Formats: sequence, structure tokens, C-alpha cells
Amino acid sequence: MIKGFSCTKCQKVYGPDYKSFTCESCGDVGILDVLYDYKAIGNHFTKLSLSKDKRLNLFRYLPLLPIKDDFIDKALQVGYTPLYRSNNIHNEIDVQKLYIKDDGLNPTASLKDRASVIAVLKCLEAKKDTICCSSTGNAASSLAGNAARMGLKTVIFVPKRAPIGKLTQLQVYGANVLSVNGDYSATYDMSKYAIDQYGYYNRNAAINPYLIEGKKTVALEIAEQLDFNMPDWVSISVGDGCTIGGVYKGFYDLLQLGFIKHIPKLLGVQAAGCSPLYKAFHNKTMPVPEEELTLADSISVGIPRNPIKALEAVRKSKGTYVEVTDEEILSSIALLGRTEGVFSEPASAASLAGVIEARKLGHISPDETVVIINTGNGLKDPANGRKAVGELTLIEPTTESVDDILNK
Amino acid sequence: MIKGFSCTKCQKVYGPDYKSFTCESCGDVGILDVLYDYKAIGNHFTKLSLSKDKRLNLFRYLPLLPIKDDFIDKALQVGYTPLYRSNNIHNEIDVQKLYIKDDGLNPTASLKDRASVIAVLKCLEAKKDTICCSSTGNAASSLAGNAARMGLKTVIFVPKRAPIGKLTQLQVYGANVLSVNGDYSATYDMSKYAIDQYGYYNRNAAINPYLIEGKKTVALEIAEQLDFNMPDWVSISVGDGCTIGGVYKGFYDLLQLGFIKHIPKLLGVQAAGCSPLYKAFHNKTMPVPEEELTLADSISVGIPRNPIKALEAVRKSKGTYVEVTDEEILSSIALLGRTEGVFSEPASAASLAGVIEARKLGHISPDETVVIINTGNGLKDPANGRKAVGELTLIEPTTESVDDILNK
Repeated sequence: MIKGFSCTKCQKVYGPDYKSFTCESCGDVGILDVLYDYKAIGNHFTKLSLSKDKRLNLFRYLPLLPIKDDFIDKALQVGYTPLYRSNNIHNEIDVQKLYIKDDGLNPTASLKDRASVIAVLKCLEAKKDTICCSSTGNAASSLAGNAARMGLKTVIFVPKRAPIGKLTQLQVYGANVLSVNGDYSATYDMSKYAIDQYGYYNRNAAINPYLIEGKKTVALEIAEQLDFNMPDWVSISVGDGCTIGGVYKGFYDLLQLGFIKHIPKLLGVQAAGCSPLYKAFHNKTMPVPEEELTLADSISVGIPRNPIKALEAVRKSKGTYVEVTDEEILSSIALLGRTEGVFSEPASAASLAGVIEARKLGHISPDETVVIINTGNGLKDPANGRKAVGELTLIEPTTESVDDILNK
Repeated sequence: MIKGFSCTKCQKVYGPDYKSFTCESCGDVGILDVLYDYKAIGNHFTKLSLSKDKRLNLFRYLPLLPIKDDFIDKALQVGYTPLYRSNNIHNEIDVQKLYIKDDGLNPTASLKDRASVIAVLKCLEAKKDTICCSSTGNAASSLAGNAARMGLKTVIFVPKRAPIGKLTQLQVYGANVLSVNGDYSATYDMSKYAIDQYGYYNRNAAINPYLIEGKKTVALEIAEQLDFNMPDWVSISVGDGCTIGGVYKGFYDLLQLGFIKHIPKLLGVQAAGCSPLYKAFHNKTMPVPEEELTLADSISVGIPRNPIKALEAVRKSKGTYVEVTDEEILSSIALLGRTEGVFSEPASAASLAGVIEARKLGHISPDETVVIINTGNGLKDPANGRKAVGELTLIEPTTESVDDILNK
């Protein structure tokens, strides 16, 4: 159902058979947007048909995905993660209707599986046997897992700071891992070199236009799980900008199909230690490169690779950007765990910290409905989880020691 | 639909209103089995009614669960995890039809969520506000997460060896954690003391008869996901023995209801460094206490608390017990990750290592259908995952370094 592609920079339109990942006029900054024939799709893809679909994964939205269905039965079961209405947390943050989309329950424990499963299917369609990316961690481990399942080889570049859970995943999934003694930008450049030099399939989300189409399914699910009654806000942390671009695209698709009446306001959340998009949004400029000084590794991106989609998504939705400190992120990890039983990695908890900040600033009012997206499982990064809660002390196995603690 | 309870030791039967967790004649070794009125249940709970149930969690089996439905909408979404047919691994282990039940995708990343969600609902029914357990890790973190979601307090005893992922989960979920300077037995004894002394709700799975009823849902799901065509074998690692007892119970329920024609053979897998049930099974004795000398922390249980159910489950199913070394466990972590994109913790990987061992011993033949249960996510224990794959080396961000690796 793909109608073609349009360049996000110069708006030039290409047909469905265009093979390059970027605009021939604009080069690497000319990231493409996949175009659909919504009229044709709407003829057979309806709320009713969807409600009858038994697939408990993102392939339930196949008419809105840029893939064939040849290999989908063999893929990992990505998506259709829980959307929880908060039981307890709303009492502590003064937002009365809060929902938590727990994408940490994807097969490799992050939202990135939504993009990676599309990537491996496109790689198979392209008849390539090796797929390559650079990543701060989740995209990498997610690609490695999804590729392993499909019998594909992976070459993966990670910055040295990636946390142990993510690195171990990569290795266990059998990836050829190149740990780069540098930051994310250096890592990205090395992957670009390898892709050009060795002809690997390119899973870098900013460049490959299909990946955002996978990420958008988180928005499709949120809408379906809320029975298409849109929340006022959806909060999501932002690094390269592809995920928030995907969230917007998902809601946009549903608006075109008439499934929803409006697109929720998007709250883009960046870490104060690395917030080029936050600043660009408020200064109405393009982002200026920054150092990467936050413990939220998944969004520690000094040079965002998808700035246009990231800024346009928030602007078009009439949302805004906020920034939050690492301390606020850590305290949000503990708050979400303690009140709702959901363990988030730092970048995920940023989406909650952002809601708290947006309440303080008056962007969000207490009676508005808010969805936060838990983009990655806290088990990915136990060291930072530990920072959020402190060390444990050992007790001796005596009833006196037990009484001492429990009578406190 | 509970008809009553029977003592697994003396077979004495109690009515549905019996309140104690163990047999009044046998004491703590008189663990109870929950009895159901299958005829009454079968009148309204059918394969057809089940196929129409839209709940994507274990509450779809509510007629077979010992709980009321008062609070289930507020609970974490436990269960209904993927069952994958293997794409690649069967070529390497000479078992042609292998399925992987990935219970690492539960909300707190282990099968134990199935028991914990029942525990917190029973605690609410009992109108208690604090729930207590001892655990080698997963039961604890699972209880903490499920209790946090329901606004319940938790007091949790863990042995000092519990891995970082699990300990961090506990703390993030806001549990009152007592880390005991001793082994699992010492930890268990301390929790027993605290439960008696402070009147907490008891989530120790061996004692509390309701928890195995939660665990059995993994078997109900495997059956439903295979359209009630039973595999020849189901392989599961064994520690205390409650989980394998639960797997048997689930199949037993379905047999009573006429949903399935036979119970699959159960393969109980223990680590060679701590295998009291393996030895007891083959020596036809009760288990003799052992030291806990395996890295598979979830099944490192020197004094199994549920030996009767653990041994009877395997015997009645006409299955067997095998033991596997830590080296075989680690290599199974890597094998499952590399071939299927599923990352398992050591105790989970033991279920695969056990299948390989059972093939070698001739218990399983190549044409038999086998299901392995991935009981816990590998992210729970990245340190042992790392042992399975080795360390990474850093490269400098230069094209020469990249070529050096990729041309190898």
C-alpha cells in the first residue's frame, strides 16, 4: 500500500519503486517519509476488521506497514504491549488520568524492536544476509535479537558507554560487535563507513525510512487500546528523534483513515545534559551539536540524526519540548517502580520526569489525560537503577537482626 | 469453583473454606493441592468460550484460578507470553520440532509473575496490607512488582548471592528488602519467622497452595497456543519444585476438562551443582539436602520445599529428570540467543541444556515435539550472560580498525 516517498527537507516526491534511502537532491539530510494510499487502505482496513485480528503483535497493522507478509510468521512477537491506567502514581504527580505504555515488554525489552523487526524483514526482501547499525544500545540489541531469530548476520557499532545489559544482549544474540572508543557520533560515522564499504543492509533509523514506520505502531496501539479516544498528551523521550517522529506518524495515519479525530499533543523530553532538540524547538533553529552528558544513554545524542521529523512532530501536534535533569530521571525510575510496578531505564523514566516538569511549567493541566511511553526495560541498565535507590545492607540470619529491621 | 483442598502427603481432604495453608495433621510438609469442580467448570468454560476471550493475560483462565475477579483489572498484565516454533536451533540439537515458551516477557521478566499476581490478589482478598516471601530472586522481584502495582507493601528476604538485576528490581519496586548473609535455606527460615511473628501474608510458593495455581497457567497457555495438540515433552528447570508441579497441574486440569487427550512427558532439569530432586527421582527416595553450587541461582535450592509435587509431576507424566553442568547451561544461553533471538537467564537455559542431555541419553528421540520454558529473562543476570559469551574489546574510531575486524 506504499504510494511513494517524500523528502522531509525539499518535499520532492518519489514513486514506490525508488530504492535509495535518502533524497537524491538533498543527500543524507534528505530523510524520506513513506507515503500511503489511505483511501485504498481504508477500503478494507477498518476499526472492525482490526478488532477481529487475532495477531497479538504489530503485524495486526500490516496495511499500514511497508513490508510484505512473506516472513512475518517467523519473526519475534513484537508489540501489542500493555497499556496500563495508573493505579497509584497520579496521586503523587497531580495528573488525574495517566496511562503507561510498557514497551519494555517487547522481545528484547525495548520499543526499538518495532523498528528492528521491520528492518530484518526489509533486509530479507532485499536478499541481503548482513545488517548493520550503530546505536547507543537498544537499537543494537534489538537488531541483534530480531536478526538472530531470522537467521541474519549483524555487524553492530556501539559507543563504549553502553550499559552491561545491552552489551550482553548483543553478544548473546551472536552479533559481530564493534565497541567504539568514542561517543555516539563517532560510532555512527564508523557504521556509515562499514555500510558503504561492505554493502550491508542499513538499519540506522534516521537514514532508513522504513524504521519509523515500525516505531509508529506504538501510537497505533495506544489509540486502539484507548478505543480511539485520544489522550490530551503523549510524553516520550527524544534522542535522535526517530521515535517521536514515529509516534506522530502513527497518529497521523489514523487521522487520515478517520479512526481518530485529532492528534494528541506530543511532549518531547530531553535530558538537560544533552538537549539540542529542546533548545532548537524553543529557539526556532536547527539543533546545534552538544556534548553527551547524561546517564540516560538511550537519549544521549549530541547530534540528532532526524531533527526535522523530531521538531515537526512536536510542532504539528501543538505540543512542546521540556528538559529534565539526571536527578529527576532517577527519581522517576523509583517513583514509577514503587507506585505502579513498572521498572524503566533512565531514558524511559525521562518521559515521566517530563510530565512532572510540564505540570510544573503549566503546559499540562491536572485534568488532562496523559500517556507516557516506557521505551526500555530497567533491567537493561541495573547500574543506573541502583543509583535511583541506593545500596542494600546485608543482615545476619538471626531473628534479632530481622526484628531490628522490621520494627524500625 | 474451588471444591476444596487435599494434602499431598496424607491425602486428607478439606472443604473450600479451610483457611490454613498446610494440612493440620502433617504440618509444613503437608502441602495442599487445590481441588476444582471440573464438571461445573466445563459447563461454561469451553475451548470455544476461551477462543473468544479477549483478555491477553492469565485471567482468561479465571474459572481454573482460585481467585475472585474483584481486582484483576488493576493487576499487571501477566501471562499470554509468546510460544515460538524454532526457526534455526533444531538444526543444531537434532530435535526437529522445538517450541520456546518465552516467559521472560512477563511484566517483571519471569514466570514467577504468574504466582505473584495470584498472591497479591489473595492478599487483597485476605484484607492484609503486607506480603512477605523469601526467594532466590525472581519470586521476590516479581512479588515486589506485582504488589507495588496493587498498592501493597512487601517484606522480602533474599540470599546474598542474588544477581544485580533482580536486587535492583526489588528496590525499584519499593520493597523492604532484607538481604541475608546466608544461603537460600537460611533466607527461607528468616522469612518464615517474620511471617509468623508479624502476620504478613505468606507468598512462599511451597507453603501457599494458591501460587502453583498461578504457575500452572503456563501449561494452559502452551496447550491453547498449540491448539490443544500436545507436545511429547515439556522441559523445565527445577529448584523448589513448585513450577514443575504447576506445569503438571495445568495439563491435569485440561485433561479433566477433556481439552487434551494426554499429559506431555515432563523433563525436570536440575543443575549438577545442586540436584537433590534429580537424585531422589532416580534413587526413588526423598531428596537429601545438598550444598548450592551452581551459577543458575533460580534453581540453586539445596532443600527443595515442594519435593512431593516435584517428583510426582514427573513420575505421573512418565517423564524423567536430568542434570546439566554450569558449562552446558552457559553454552545453552549462547545457543538460544544466537539461533532464536531469545535471551535466557541460567536457570531458563537449563531447560534447553536438559533437552540436549536427554537427547544424548536417548530419552527424547529426534522426531518428538519438545517445548522448553524460558522461565526468566537473561537481563536479570547479565554477569552470567557475559560469562556465556566473553568480554568485548574496544576499537578506535578509525576506518582501519573497522576493516581489521570486518575482514577477519
